[in-house]
Amino acid sequence: MSAALPVTGAWRPGDEPGQRRFVTFPHDRPFALDTGTTLQDVTIAYETWGRLDATASNAILVCHAWTGDSHAAGPAGHGHPSPGWWDDVIGPGKAIDTDRWFVVCSNVLGGCQGTTGPASPHPVDGLPYGSRFPVVTIRDMVRAEARLASHLGIDTWHAVIGGSMGGMQVLEWAITFPQRVRSIVPIATCAQATAQQIAWGAIGRRAIRLDPNWRGGDYYDAPPGEGPTEGLAVARMVAQVTFRSDNVFTDRFGRDLADGGNLNGRLDLWQRFEVERYLDHHGEKLIRRFDTNSYLAIGKAMDLHDVGRGRGGLKAAMGRIRVPTLTMGIWSDMLYPSYQQRQIRDLLVDLGTPCDYVEIDSPHGHDAFLIELDQVGAPIARFLDEVAKG
Amino acid sequence: MSAALPVTGAWRPGDEPGQRRFVTFPHDRPFALDTGTTLQDVTIAYETWGRLDATASNAILVCHAWTGDSHAAGPAGHGHPSPGWWDDVIGPGKAIDTDRWFVVCSNVLGGCQGTTGPASPHPVDGLPYGSRFPVVTIRDMVRAEARLASHLGIDTWHAVIGGSMGGMQVLEWAITFPQRVRSIVPIATCAQATAQQIAWGAIGRRAIRLDPNWRGGDYYDAPPGEGPTEGLAVARMVAQVTFRSDNVFTDRFGRDLADGGNLNGRLDLWQRFEVERYLDHHGEKLIRRFDTNSYLAIGKAMDLHDVGRGRGGLKAAMGRIRVPTLTMGIWSDMLYPSYQQRQIRDLLVDLGTPCDYVEIDSPHGHDAFLIELDQVGAPIARFLDEVAKG
Repeated sequence: MSAALPVTGAWRPGDEPGQRRFVTFPHDRPFALDTGTTLQDVTIAYETWGRLDATASNAILVCHAWTGDSHAAGPAGHGHPSPGWWDDVIGPGKAIDTDRWFVVCSNVLGGCQGTTGPASPHPVDGLPYGSRFPVVTIRDMVRAEARLASHLGIDTWHAVIGGSMGGMQVLEWAITFPQRVRSIVPIATCAQATAQQIAWGAIGRRAIRLDPNWRGGDYYDAPPGEGPTEGLAVARMVAQVTFRSDNVFTDRFGRDLADGGNLNGRLDLWQRFEVERYLDHHGEKLIRRFDTNSYLAIGKAMDLHDVGRGRGGLKAAMGRIRVPTLTMGIWSDMLYPSYQQRQIRDLLVDLGTPCDYVEIDSPHGHDAFLIELDQVGAPIARFLDEVAKG
Repeated sequence: MSAALPVTGAWRPGDEPGQRRFVTFPHDRPFALDTGTTLQDVTIAYETWGRLDATASNAILVCHAWTGDSHAAGPAGHGHPSPGWWDDVIGPGKAIDTDRWFVVCSNVLGGCQGTTGPASPHPVDGLPYGSRFPVVTIRDMVRAEARLASHLGIDTWHAVIGGSMGGMQVLEWAITFPQRVRSIVPIATCAQATAQQIAWGAIGRRAIRLDPNWRGGDYYDAPPGEGPTEGLAVARMVAQVTFRSDNVFTDRFGRDLADGGNLNGRLDLWQRFEVERYLDHHGEKLIRRFDTNSYLAIGKAMDLHDVGRGRGGLKAAMGRIRVPTLTMGIWSDMLYPSYQQRQIRDLLVDLGTPCDYVEIDSPHGHDAFLIELDQVGAPIARFLDEVAKG
């Protein structure tokens, strides 16, 4: 790859803030982690849309997925290389109508777009945490979001909404802070990561560790072009295949060759098929906007996700959810198969909690929650309205 | 990993031959490859079971998969670290009854268990081919097998049988040499590799290339412990997940931790779940018996597999198959989904060629063709018998 590639795609203090706002937790209140350790001076980067009403009752928290960030809505521009990842869902007159709702999205703990993560300066020496960054869990992310909510004066969210890892946060919100949510929408997610999901995650971890430029996680002072970009790109390839689907890959790429290659010429081990060019393209895009250590940290948090851990198991944990729930799945999702969202529905309904399940009819696999925005938005809009009517 | 790991797990001249026999093609007849280049002095390692009858009409060719070899049947022992990969299918009184049939299995071209491949000595300088080994295709493998057949005095196989990559060879046999097969049994395979299958292959390739010990393919003179074993292990992890299934991983590993770990202690990025230990175990096993460059060569051959290439497309190519066919699929196979074997059946039946489809009822995914040996063997035995009766 090009020698010009950055060592990290993380947002760093001094970079253009764009739409981000920031809150740093008070120095005298260290943030206690699931691991038993603490983080000092945690900063959360977040964005908001709409206006919080006088009783702070119209707030909605939107939670992002693995490589997402706080820029859920709004155009690309300074500080935001891409438009919001749910820009067609969130905005004035859209499914999550910002003329009515005050919408908040924050970058998760361990992330790399303004919130404290491995690329952030360690408060003691100002150098990036790197290998010193502790393991964080989805519960840690949610407790950080709860501190942000308090900072914003929001006691109770009208709804907490998110897909994939965002949906893991949604479930943890309702279980950890049952009094602080009025409803939840977990999409294309699970109550606990399966062995196969962990296996996909493990492969990405190993690919990154295999990259000599990863340097055990302490690569931030490497010269440009010598960051752990190849390892991250391979890890991303694994994810990208699981995010999509066999049938869409066949329709889109078939057996076409990339780079004007043809199979009648001399065959080469590294001659790329079109699907490989596509995977490379996604790897290279990610390298420019993401940090390899954040990829590891967040991936591990997903593997550790199990709402039942330390709570007497799955059923006992799900029993703490007492608010109306809308869960959504995608029939073609091979990463978070729809049986996992039906399991959420079944557990809740059996326990007497109202829960609807809506299946998105899409061949696009897991990523359909970022693609089929009409199908995602319409049930959310209806659900938010029903909850408001009580 | 341990410093004692071999640089390659390839069988090398001088190693214990075990049950292998060898044939080397005459020096004055270079072996022409699909790439347009040639290989000199190609050696094929093969094994046989049973006795060829006087008219050479009872011969069956069994074709192995990616990391298989000629040891399809028989015990472990000198030269063969494991029992035959289809030992419960092939033998006296078994489904492929060696009291009746003369069974042949050879290591594929590009392999590493006695047949010419990247770890073999180059005829010019006696050093391993390494990066000099050309791309080979399934068609090259099959034409090498055809030379072996001629060497053995076998003009026509009663049947050619194989699963996964073995099944690709089976199809190519019937298309390339329609006069030399009486029937075929392609199992858990496809007529052309899909974009998703290529994508899985590409990830493994990239993981190996990422391993600094791979050295562009020229690693054979590295000291023990400095071979490209980590890259191969990561590539194998990808394959191993696709060979199995979500439900079996859940039943077998769930969210258990390996190494006596527990989630109430301090969490660590490299703390392994049980499924990771399992994947590591399979990676380490493969390293000891396989060669990284062979893994690349054979993987590329599978990605290039398309019976329609240069033959006017899929339908025209399949139209050359004029012999009774039994194809088998596995409902839980995520790598070669059963729609691909039903496609083979549908193409053949539409073209007027008799073809039965049998679905193996197993949750074990792709590997079921190596596990559910009763379900695999019984239809084969019946089919061989029917073909014999004409």
